[in-house]
Amino acid sequence: MTQLQEARKGIITPEMVQAAELEGITGEELRQKIAIGEAVLPCNINHQGLRPMAVGKGLSTKVNANIGTSDAYPELAPELSKLEIAVAAGVHSIMDLSTGGDIDEIRRRIIQDSPVMVGTVPLYQVMVDTHKAGRGLVEMTDDEIFAGIEKHCRDGADFITVHCGVTLEVIQELREQGRVMDIVSRGGSFITAWMLHHQRQNPLFEQYDRLLNIALHYDVTLSLGDGLRPGCLADATDGPQIKELITLGSLVKRAQEAGVQVMVEGPGHVPLHQIETNMQLAKTLCHNAPFYVLGPLVTDVAPGYDHITSAIGGAIAASSGADFLCYVTPAEHLGLPTEEDVKEGVIAARIAAHAADLVKGIKGAWEWDLEMAKARKALDWPKQIQLSIDPEKAGRMRKAKNEDSQERCTMCGKFCAYQLISDYMGTPFKGC
Amino acid sequence: MTQLQEARKGIITPEMVQAAELEGITGEELRQKIAIGEAVLPCNINHQGLRPMAVGKGLSTKVNANIGTSDAYPELAPELSKLEIAVAAGVHSIMDLSTGGDIDEIRRRIIQDSPVMVGTVPLYQVMVDTHKAGRGLVEMTDDEIFAGIEKHCRDGADFITVHCGVTLEVIQELREQGRVMDIVSRGGSFITAWMLHHQRQNPLFEQYDRLLNIALHYDVTLSLGDGLRPGCLADATDGPQIKELITLGSLVKRAQEAGVQVMVEGPGHVPLHQIETNMQLAKTLCHNAPFYVLGPLVTDVAPGYDHITSAIGGAIAASSGADFLCYVTPAEHLGLPTEEDVKEGVIAARIAAHAADLVKGIKGAWEWDLEMAKARKALDWPKQIQLSIDPEKAGRMRKAKNEDSQERCTMCGKFCAYQLISDYMGTPFKGC
Repeated sequence: MTQLQEARKGIITPEMVQAAELEGITGEELRQKIAIGEAVLPCNINHQGLRPMAVGKGLSTKVNANIGTSDAYPELAPELSKLEIAVAAGVHSIMDLSTGGDIDEIRRRIIQDSPVMVGTVPLYQVMVDTHKAGRGLVEMTDDEIFAGIEKHCRDGADFITVHCGVTLEVIQELREQGRVMDIVSRGGSFITAWMLHHQRQNPLFEQYDRLLNIALHYDVTLSLGDGLRPGCLADATDGPQIKELITLGSLVKRAQEAGVQVMVEGPGHVPLHQIETNMQLAKTLCHNAPFYVLGPLVTDVAPGYDHITSAIGGAIAASSGADFLCYVTPAEHLGLPTEEDVKEGVIAARIAAHAADLVKGIKGAWEWDLEMAKARKALDWPKQIQLSIDPEKAGRMRKAKNEDSQERCTMCGKFCAYQLISDYMGTPFKGC
Repeated sequence: MTQLQEARKGIITPEMVQAAELEGITGEELRQKIAIGEAVLPCNINHQGLRPMAVGKGLSTKVNANIGTSDAYPELAPELSKLEIAVAAGVHSIMDLSTGGDIDEIRRRIIQDSPVMVGTVPLYQVMVDTHKAGRGLVEMTDDEIFAGIEKHCRDGADFITVHCGVTLEVIQELREQGRVMDIVSRGGSFITAWMLHHQRQNPLFEQYDRLLNIALHYDVTLSLGDGLRPGCLADATDGPQIKELITLGSLVKRAQEAGVQVMVEGPGHVPLHQIETNMQLAKTLCHNAPFYVLGPLVTDVAPGYDHITSAIGGAIAASSGADFLCYVTPAEHLGLPTEEDVKEGVIAARIAAHAADLVKGIKGAWEWDLEMAKARKALDWPKQIQLSIDPEKAGRMRKAKNEDSQERCTMCGKFCAYQLISDYMGTPFKGC
């Protein structure tokens, strides 16, 4: 049985207990959220050693890091290293998007090594395999697509991105409306090319029940991909995007009815003032299923800094209801991320998630900031470093800028505001 | 005459023409904004070689970078280098907050070298001078404070931060309400200590007309400091902060009546969902004077990444009405920024400002993103790099991650979404 089916029967599974503990809520509270589809607990029956975490309404905002090889960088070792770095930086989920090297081996090793949930996009591998076999991508058959999906599920992927909402009707909408960047989702663009070539409906939509059966068997959470994700601000919140979202809403319902856990993916590039609207639409159109966003990036013009453009968008998105943030690294739009990029991306997304958790009133969020404020007031440097979201970096920067013995920092030096005012307000101060 | 006085008389000054040109509006449009106090044009009559820029409603969001020495780092050269780096990174304003070395010489050189407006906090130097003279800080006299202010104005400071709103009544409010971090503003904490010691009203409040006379003479824009700026989320939007803001509102009116240009400074550390309220309050309480914010930082727990916490807050603040963002560097809460920190801080704040300019509908903002989107769609790499907010970094990262000859990036490699979809949608694509 899937976690959803168990939850509906009133059963609190060991995975629910573990995940609830991390949130500071009871297993029963989490069970209820899962039962009504407002939360998912991605944990493939074949993923050994997973620390299960739940994603959804009323839970802390989760962060995913994408890693994986490409044909230019096919080695396993750097990706395992990125996994380790991301987990150490506090990530809650990893997606393996490998398209180079021994993809099966890479995925299996990542799942084996990862203590956090692992997601994949099975279609990518099917594309690579077809290409390697010397065939045109559009020659891929339905059976090959579903076999690829089943392989990833059997290997223990906790969730998979499936672009089921890219229908002929949505593509027609796109053709009529036009866009600056058309389709920027890799999976979405391939499915579209396939459909246009064969003049056939999307097999992931047409044979959705086949997909549900596979997901049901391994308790894989479906992450309904947004193939029509806007690739630039000018394309945001347009007809094709929202039409696909409506379709995803109906697929959410069918998955839940079948007992399959499901969440929905969202944009993308979105102007700041359209983000809240996007989140509300996602929740109303998709029956409050957990919403997983890539960014959103609030401007197109900052390659090299898209961890920042997406931290801005992600914080607003999560404050307005998004449950799960996919990190964006400084390398976005330029190439694959280095290990350093991975860490920067995870921390930036965690900052966005935490800023939103403060708004959501998530347990422990406010207390964390309060503890830091008290440590600052007391000029308690070891405590400040320890409470930092990245103690390693904060400690390193503090050390580089100040002699160890100084209690005040070089910013104010002798004219420390805390010291000045504490003397006169009679508030406690561990003086210099 | 000040720019405000000229504007009221219907005169479009050469400075207004220059500043209006940068905004893509007419001199008359800018004159009207200045005349009603919704915009300021900081340009001290003694700042030679200044490229004047205006700050206020309907104008592009401006970014300031704080630089300056401390007792631990008293050298001039690194600060001039930071000035150069900040200007090259596109900053619109520099504040010299020096408290170490030959402060007069440092300020004069920065003003001389800076093509952008320069702000200072005269009180800092008066504090240092008093300390150097072997006297207790609270022994500083009213006359010394005003002499210090006049010196900075005579030297060509385009705007000065003056903590006029820290009154005995505001401090009483603080004592009654209590706070986790009391006062974190250096100027605010000193003024408070001085007032409590002497049991006297704030001279900058009591003798506000004296201040106005100095500002009038040199056309220095007053930047009314928020001495009660919250230093942590728990202290945000509380009685003391808002009481001071009300006081600043009355001082705005008096400045404008006297023909003195004036803007208002704002927080600080503010939870994400309180930012819009803060901006609205600032505008209504302060008669729509330009609002200049430090951050706001949306969480306390990310030292080492406060350029990101403040980019999140700054983007939301500026979208909700803030006109001027003070950058925050990765070094905030840890020490003085390095040259690298300065650049990161400026770019992060410019991203926040631009994300807001897209919302504000500022001329040229939308077009910039649209051009980038078109360059991306066309895989036109030189154009993408050129359009980047930091072409140097984008170019460097692109080069490190990809062979020069490749048109596709390593992210998708052979499975480039743009290429796939362009083939089938019949949209223009400069194929690989």
